[in-house]
Amino acid sequence: MGEFELLARLRERLPAAAGRVRLGSGDDAAITVPGGATATSVDAIVDGVHFHRELMTPRAIGRRALAVSLSDLAAMGAAPGEAYVVAGIPTDLDEGEALEILDGVATLASECGVTLAGGDVTRSPALTLTVTVVGHAERPEDFVTRDGARPGDALLVTGELGGAAAALLLQERPQLAEGLDLSDATRRALAARLLDPAPRLEAGAALAAAGADAMIDISDGLGGDARHLAEASGVGIHIDATRLPLSEGVREVAAASGFEDPAELAVSGGEDYELLACVPAASVAAAGAALAAAGTRITRVGVVVAGAGVEISSSGGRRLPPGGYDQLAHGRS
Amino acid sequence: MGEFELLARLRERLPAAAGRVRLGSGDDAAITVPGGATATSVDAIVDGVHFHRELMTPRAIGRRALAVSLSDLAAMGAAPGEAYVVAGIPTDLDEGEALEILDGVATLASECGVTLAGGDVTRSPALTLTVTVVGHAERPEDFVTRDGARPGDALLVTGELGGAAAALLLQERPQLAEGLDLSDATRRALAARLLDPAPRLEAGAALAAAGADAMIDISDGLGGDARHLAEASGVGIHIDATRLPLSEGVREVAAASGFEDPAELAVSGGEDYELLACVPAASVAAAGAALAAAGTRITRVGVVVAGAGVEISSSGGRRLPPGGYDQLAHGRS
Repeated sequence: MGEFELLARLRERLPAAAGRVRLGSGDDAAITVPGGATATSVDAIVDGVHFHRELMTPRAIGRRALAVSLSDLAAMGAAPGEAYVVAGIPTDLDEGEALEILDGVATLASECGVTLAGGDVTRSPALTLTVTVVGHAERPEDFVTRDGARPGDALLVTGELGGAAAALLLQERPQLAEGLDLSDATRRALAARLLDPAPRLEAGAALAAAGADAMIDISDGLGGDARHLAEASGVGIHIDATRLPLSEGVREVAAASGFEDPAELAVSGGEDYELLACVPAASVAAAGAALAAAGTRITRVGVVVAGAGVEISSSGGRRLPPGGYDQLAHGRS
Repeated sequence: MGEFELLARLRERLPAAAGRVRLGSGDDAAITVPGGATATSVDAIVDGVHFHRELMTPRAIGRRALAVSLSDLAAMGAAPGEAYVVAGIPTDLDEGEALEILDGVATLASECGVTLAGGDVTRSPALTLTVTVVGHAERPEDFVTRDGARPGDALLVTGELGGAAAALLLQERPQLAEGLDLSDATRRALAARLLDPAPRLEAGAALAAAGADAMIDISDGLGGDARHLAEASGVGIHIDATRLPLSEGVREVAAASGFEDPAELAVSGGEDYELLACVPAASVAAAGAALAAAGTRITRVGVVVAGAGVEISSSGGRRLPPGGYDQLAHGRS
């Protein structure tokens, strides 16, 4: 199957013009009618770098590609709008798999109210999915950036942390996985944290509406992303690691893997795709109520302080290093 | 150098907020204030598929990646706005080369009035540049799509054709190149058609303003792109190949390569990145004047007819097949 034929097959699966999209895939460009302001983010996932084809279904690969891009929109508090997907297809990926990948993208897009507005297909030595997402707001200042944190803000985190890192440890060390006393449900839930992260779009919008003044998604690990946020805002951040909401099973995996403190998996393991938000003290109650209404757990894990740097204290006076993952240096993100 | 460091170096070279961009690279997403309507296009170029690293400078690779995306905006008649670049960097590409690639992108962006608003860097087995471009207009209907051609329209083409295909032949057959009586200036000009295509943004805007009712950029060859346009519009297209404006040197290269008709290089060789526009007969004079004012050659090469399909007649009653390049099937585009 050639490029045009595969593109045509992919297009059959794309919705017609919908939402803000006036003309979808098939012309030189897609035509949209944006809101007053747009937030745009681009992300790529590459086989062997960000995921391993043999460990995921094609559908899950597609979902994940879109999810990590949408997580950036969630961190802006943006209303999700359009997505554009470029698929780099190696010769050993068959047509059925390529279409399943797009089905994965399209399913998550539909779940999140995102219109797949365009894309491209090309040959590539490694399966690569590059996703551009566009979110909307009435005014540019409605988006929540990284640089607005102020001393005194409460530091809130959505959902649970450490699950993706724990799942990665289980995946990489089958013997460790066999020896652990974890229920099948817990194992499946951990695997889903790694393989099928859910972008926190509703939570991000609720936090923005509740007055969050800075926000970032946790893709590099809580410590690293807190550092990015602190640097952008010119503030310091204190985190109480004993308060971190850990996914079920993280304690067991951390202990069996020789970590002194299970919070290390949340602090330095990435890919949880939760949100870290700074909220003025007066708005914390409103933010909590909004998140509860959205069905998302929210936990106060620290405070923004004057100064610089990230300090993470744990039980017994221990300090955890604010790690953070560097994908080019370490080979995965 | 790790991902964050390379990203930081790249960001130093990006302009601060400019144009419609309120917040550029560095946050979870870029923030822009669009016009009433946007045109968005995504394209990727992959080493070994769309270009060969060893045959181009890093700077030229960067320019080309942006140029092919901007060509799609030109074909919409869009005012160019923002670009987002994802660079997939193999381990054997050094930091200096990566920065030169971005310099190439940034230089062309500056020349075209485009703001580099964001991007990402990742490891990849092959050098890959994926570029998303966004163009603007007041209203969705201001953009020129592929589907508006009507019988009786004149078929116009900007600039000159066949140069990229001729340059590719010279590149692939050094013996052919040596034996040809071409001046150095002609050889350089042909090579530039292949290696440094110029997106026809001003010409596209002028054609849109002059009343073009359908437009496409010529990336797959005149024949193939005419077919795309004819299918989208539900019309037929007749092209007079004897009128095609061929780049200097194309005749010589075609003859030495055994082509019966030099127009074949224009018809089936891709990558000229000129525009093919359908203009109502009453507007042809205005379009010609507008293009002349923009300093761009424009040639009437055919007519839109009722029916379907593309017919290309050449001298002596010969017919040329409307080829068109299929990148996945043939390994390059």
